[in-house]
Amino acid sequence: MRSMNVGIIGYRFMGKAHSNGWLKAPLFFDLNIKPELKVACGRNREAVEAFAQKWGWQRVETDWKKVVEDPEIDIVDISLPQHLHYEVALAAAANGKHIFCEKPLAHSLQQAEAMLKAAEDNGVLHYLNHNYRRTPAVQLAKQFIDEGKIGRIFHWRGAYQQDWIVDPNFPLTWQLQKETAHAGPQWDLNSHSVDLAHFLVGDIKTVSCLTTNFITERPLPRQGETAFSKGSVNTEKGKVTVEDAALMMVEFENGAIGSFEATRFATGRKNAHTFEIYGSKGSLAFNLERMNELQYFSNDDPDNAQGFRTIMATESSHPYVSHWWPPGHIIGYEHGFVHAVADFMEALDKKETITPNFTDGVRILKVLEAGLASARSGQKVELS
Amino acid sequence: MRSMNVGIIGYRFMGKAHSNGWLKAPLFFDLNIKPELKVACGRNREAVEAFAQKWGWQRVETDWKKVVEDPEIDIVDISLPQHLHYEVALAAAANGKHIFCEKPLAHSLQQAEAMLKAAEDNGVLHYLNHNYRRTPAVQLAKQFIDEGKIGRIFHWRGAYQQDWIVDPNFPLTWQLQKETAHAGPQWDLNSHSVDLAHFLVGDIKTVSCLTTNFITERPLPRQGETAFSKGSVNTEKGKVTVEDAALMMVEFENGAIGSFEATRFATGRKNAHTFEIYGSKGSLAFNLERMNELQYFSNDDPDNAQGFRTIMATESSHPYVSHWWPPGHIIGYEHGFVHAVADFMEALDKKETITPNFTDGVRILKVLEAGLASARSGQKVELS
Amino acid sequence: MRSMNVGIIGYRFMGKAHSNGWLKAPLFFDLNIKPELKVACGRNREAVEAFAQKWGWQRVETDWKKVVEDPEIDIVDISLPQHLHYEVALAAAANGKHIFCEKPLAHSLQQAEAMLKAAEDNGVLHYLNHNYRRTPAVQLAKQFIDEGKIGRIFHWRGAYQQDWIVDPNFPLTWQLQKETAHAGPQWDLNSHSVDLAHFLVGDIKTVSCLTTNFITERPLPRQGETAFSKGSVNTEKGKVTVEDAALMMVEFENGAIGSFEATRFATGRKNAHTFEIYGSKGSLAFNLERMNELQYFSNDDPDNAQGFRTIMATESSHPYVSHWWPPGHIIGYEHGFVHAVADFMEALDKKETITPNFTDGVRILKVLEAGLASARSGQKVELS
Amino acid sequence: MRSMNVGIIGYRFMGKAHSNGWLKAPLFFDLNIKPELKVACGRNREAVEAFAQKWGWQRVETDWKKVVEDPEIDIVDISLPQHLHYEVALAAAANGKHIFCEKPLAHSLQQAEAMLKAAEDNGVLHYLNHNYRRTPAVQLAKQFIDEGKIGRIFHWRGAYQQDWIVDPNFPLTWQLQKETAHAGPQWDLNSHSVDLAHFLVGDIKTVSCLTTNFITERPLPRQGETAFSKGSVNTEKGKVTVEDAALMMVEFENGAIGSFEATRFATGRKNAHTFEIYGSKGSLAFNLERMNELQYFSNDDPDNAQGFRTIMATESSHPYVSHWWPPGHIIGYEHGFVHAVADFMEALDKKETITPNFTDGVRILKVLEAGLASARSGQKVELS
Repeated sequence: MRSMNVGIIGYRFMGKAHSNGWLKAPLFFDLNIKPELKVACGRNREAVEAFAQKWGWQRVETDWKKVVEDPEIDIVDISLPQHLHYEVALAAAANGKHIFCEKPLAHSLQQAEAMLKAAEDNGVLHYLNHNYRRTPAVQLAKQFIDEGKIGRIFHWRGAYQQDWIVDPNFPLTWQLQKETAHAGPQWDLNSHSVDLAHFLVGDIKTVSCLTTNFITERPLPRQGETAFSKGSVNTEKGKVTVEDAALMMVEFENGAIGSFEATRFATGRKNAHTFEIYGSKGSLAFNLERMNELQYFSNDDPDNAQGFRTIMATESSHPYVSHWWPPGHIIGYEHGFVHAVADFMEALDKKETITPNFTDGVRILKVLEAGLASARSGQKVELS
Repeated sequence: MRSMNVGIIGYRFMGKAHSNGWLKAPLFFDLNIKPELKVACGRNREAVEAFAQKWGWQRVETDWKKVVEDPEIDIVDISLPQHLHYEVALAAAANGKHIFCEKPLAHSLQQAEAMLKAAEDNGVLHYLNHNYRRTPAVQLAKQFIDEGKIGRIFHWRGAYQQDWIVDPNFPLTWQLQKETAHAGPQWDLNSHSVDLAHFLVGDIKTVSCLTTNFITERPLPRQGETAFSKGSVNTEKGKVTVEDAALMMVEFENGAIGSFEATRFATGRKNAHTFEIYGSKGSLAFNLERMNELQYFSNDDPDNAQGFRTIMATESSHPYVSHWWPPGHIIGYEHGFVHAVADFMEALDKKETITPNFTDGVRILKVLEAGLASARSGQKVELS
Repeated sequence: MRSMNVGIIGYRFMGKAHSNGWLKAPLFFDLNIKPELKVACGRNREAVEAFAQKWGWQRVETDWKKVVEDPEIDIVDISLPQHLHYEVALAAAANGKHIFCEKPLAHSLQQAEAMLKAAEDNGVLHYLNHNYRRTPAVQLAKQFIDEGKIGRIFHWRGAYQQDWIVDPNFPLTWQLQKETAHAGPQWDLNSHSVDLAHFLVGDIKTVSCLTTNFITERPLPRQGETAFSKGSVNTEKGKVTVEDAALMMVEFENGAIGSFEATRFATGRKNAHTFEIYGSKGSLAFNLERMNELQYFSNDDPDNAQGFRTIMATESSHPYVSHWWPPGHIIGYEHGFVHAVADFMEALDKKETITPNFTDGVRILKVLEAGLASARSGQKVELS
Repeated sequence: MRSMNVGIIGYRFMGKAHSNGWLKAPLFFDLNIKPELKVACGRNREAVEAFAQKWGWQRVETDWKKVVEDPEIDIVDISLPQHLHYEVALAAAANGKHIFCEKPLAHSLQQAEAMLKAAEDNGVLHYLNHNYRRTPAVQLAKQFIDEGKIGRIFHWRGAYQQDWIVDPNFPLTWQLQKETAHAGPQWDLNSHSVDLAHFLVGDIKTVSCLTTNFITERPLPRQGETAFSKGSVNTEKGKVTVEDAALMMVEFENGAIGSFEATRFATGRKNAHTFEIYGSKGSLAFNLERMNELQYFSNDDPDNAQGFRTIMATESSHPYVSHWWPPGHIIGYEHGFVHAVADFMEALDKKETITPNFTDGVRILKVLEAGLASARSGQKVELS
């Protein structure tokens, strides 16, 4: 079996999820090219060494430049916070490395466009990890649409609802500051929703957007605090510089219309990434918290026997499922990463592109930026 | 027992629903003033006589002016299509009749304001039948909000989805023409949603709206055709002059933001009037198709035992329920009308106002008109 | 229009539900024979007079014998507790009255058989009000089965779960004593489940049953106490003499097997009358708390698009629905009584039988008695 | 880090699921003893070598005796069909190997008892892989019960419903023959349900059982056919010698009663392992197809705010979850095996027992055998 060497940059939440993907893909899929977990990179040597040992990365680096310039490395996995993607991606492309990049693509549309150009100019494979596309149920939705089961699409109704900053004492982490995060849920969450809308419905033509802040100041994080730990709170405060919630209304090129709702203030919703699609022949609905299920309504059913049916997307006839377990035995969040790696390795083998990629990332960021502009102006924005 | 005499104008779908309300309210509620079903009015004498006999209306008229001028009549029930409300309401008010009016209030904001002024000037009780407020589950939602269980409200997410004109052969009925309907789902459906949003969240400050048409021409209805009868289709066509779907994004006075989605093109959704409300202490969700249930999430539950709970609003401790059946024995669509009549008669008895009323109707139409203006301009509209 | 005169005996919970049925059936259905609400009967004159006035019963009696012997009366409605059905039904039949009888049929199988014989010998129409059969969703289930959509039936899985006596201070009402109730949920709740199983699956051949008591003594009710009022509790106690819960396993004549679960101790379940039916071609599921919905799974759907679909049984193509409201506008518990009256009047008009009737009641009680015998012996019982 | 060497016997469905467990446990859990994937064993050398290479088992054997006698091996993982467990387990115990055994424990109660004795006599750790116990939601249910949140338990209502042999052309595989399977869903599926009932409710005192066959003859499998492949069917048929479905009613030692339903004929149910538990203070419900969710009803909620709440068991405060992903990011079927390995290694480290083990397996098989006896006799069976 051929193999290719992977260097991963970043070792926190996404490093773990990606490592699991690199490790498991060859176990559950018959890959023609096997990924070798070669180098893990992070600034804290001790931490990255523990990480590497656990996951089987053969060696470590603390300087990402060493990884992207390493002749042994074929694939660079960018598992970093988004404001750090740009520099790494450009260098990786310049060195001819294939790129497996966490979402959202970049800190700004300008960066994203430069990253796309670099990847294309250097002829490397580029993948953007909007992994929810690779859920069997979402792939099945795509199949149904492509087969004409839904007919002409009228409506997209999407939401991505979380609640992790409802508490006013949640600290001012990097996600809440414009310098590091560029924007709030418009960037973090709506990027996922727009990716699925692009995938399932098509290109977006106009955007109207409304953003707001419910809490404008928050305690500064203490040294080393990256998440919320209930307990004593820093009395020093700083200003929240990204939005807390973002709504969008859009027109698609094909005449459908859509709505998006992204928020970190939907008390009780943990990871409620949902969509509804209504068409002339049928409809679909999906909820990431029940990601093994697809709701489907068909106008072709007899008049007195129509209804939304809950398809358990766990049959071997469903996308990806034959690699896993018998019907009714569900898979989870992390499986999307395994599917992504498997498809990435297959694209390398077949010398084909894979989607979503940097092209898609640029399209997504165009929509999101247009949204931010619309929120500022109060006007509908046409996408060029 | 005292009684007051009712004259109903209109005898179709809403005439039936209202008659059932007038008839049943005294059977299930202990009213101090009983409504007498005195006169039913419609232009087709034969039809209205059959209607009157069935429901127990004591006599009939074919000229609505006779009803509003009849000294024997205390209450005028306007069960007509909305473009006919204005003239009747003005005359009824001028004659000192109390008014029980079907929604939406009027064909235009101007009419609505005139109707409100007439009712107030003449000191009559005025009620606007946005009957979904009178569902036990919606009243319970209001209680929870008023008690502080939800805390500060961040989000309203509402939709009213139907699918009755997805078929391009559905004829060009009065609901699809501007002269008779003024607007499409923005008027018909979003009026309900905005009423609930006003009731549960508060006043709206700004509106952005997007409308569209999926089907721009339809077969002309044949003689007497008021609804869809599958079969041969008129080859003569006419232009659809109201929108097929309307989306809105709003800012509330209290800082919450909201989204609305009204459509007749949501294949598979029959009467999906839904809302989600997210607040700092808890959240709520409702679906009219399961109108006996209220979803409630509380931050006060122990950390490891939080979740959306499905409250069956069928306990005697829930609003209105003690008048009906034991726990778990559900009520239906028509019960809202019975509650409305009971509350209307109680308001008459106590010489109090009742809500929603023409004041609310004016507020609702202001929002809806602002929406239509925003859809035309592509700009956010501030409500005065 | 022809009419027939009804005399109702009993004016509490069931009197109210039945009166509503007699009143509304002619309003929503085109009946050839209209029921006249002639006489209401109860032992407490004051109470029955208030009841009669409210519902429009033209006069009252305090002695039921007067009603069953009254030449003016055509139909006797037995809305009494079940231990009082026998004597009234026998007399009503002897006097040639048609009988509309609340369930369960009688206090014992012997009584039930005598009631059936009396009704048949006297040629009167007899109806037993297992009204859940008359839910549109249940009728639709029957249609699907009759059309072969489900194929050969393998499984019935039914339950009727309530929780109204979980509190040990709930008093020892008549429902908890053998003299008045004959049995507990086996009689009260399983009678409904067995009726639906007979209707949808077929005759039962063998029964195994398990009953138990969780609370064996309860406070005696105070004077006039018929239900649970939280507050001070009688310190005098008496023995509970009927079971608290009853499970059954059965074999049907057609080879299907089934399970039944009836309890008043299912904390959180208010009126959870549910069933699942699994067949060789499809499956069905129903829950009375969501009585407008029928779950349906079809093996005929394409392999990758199978799933349980939620049919909103609110289309005009569904049984009974064309008499009510548009799609998605749900009906409630009381509507089953209206349907029962409409069908009863139609049977009278067409001189046909109606089901379920006393024949069905006898079949049901045979199963329930066999269950009680099995619970005592620990052995499977064959039905003759 | 210390490590212990594992030898796995069997490499099909369960070999894959177990290997994934051995591999992932040290990646997601901080284990004091790391399992080394030392030897994989199977009769087909080529197949087992492919398996070993994929999963990282260091070497292979084709004779299981070599594994259980290998001094290098500390842990024997029995991933074989159940009729082969006995001999391997006895030899493994005799050689002092710790045993990680797939369920159900054995082909008969006698075998199970001997296996337990052998394990105990030789002082080895024994674990029986009823892995559904190790779902966060099920562990949370156990916590709630232990904390008294449910109070005194009245009811267990369990089912395990599948539909994989509804097609009469499904071949007569080993699972359908008494010699290899001992029994049908009573063994395969009810063993899981009884395990959870023991875990959550307690010991069972009496059993009544009903079994049946819907299809008595099936095509013989063709050479090498282990599962269903639609297509041409063998015309030679053989007799099905295990039951197609099994129902049980039980009494628990603590006074609760329970029902069980296990079937391979529930069309549309793929892996519907469900339970409901009703107690004096609250209730619980679970469905394996939505295994990240636990339904919980509490009598302690305010009277007008009670309802079944859906707890997403994906919070870091929930059992096992802190090792995985953020809230709302679900896990799947295979994670139970990872938890099992982690707990097994911890038990080895702490020199403690782990449950369920062979003791539990014996208890489970006693119930199941009593059920089969009851089904034959038609009588309730007391467990000794």
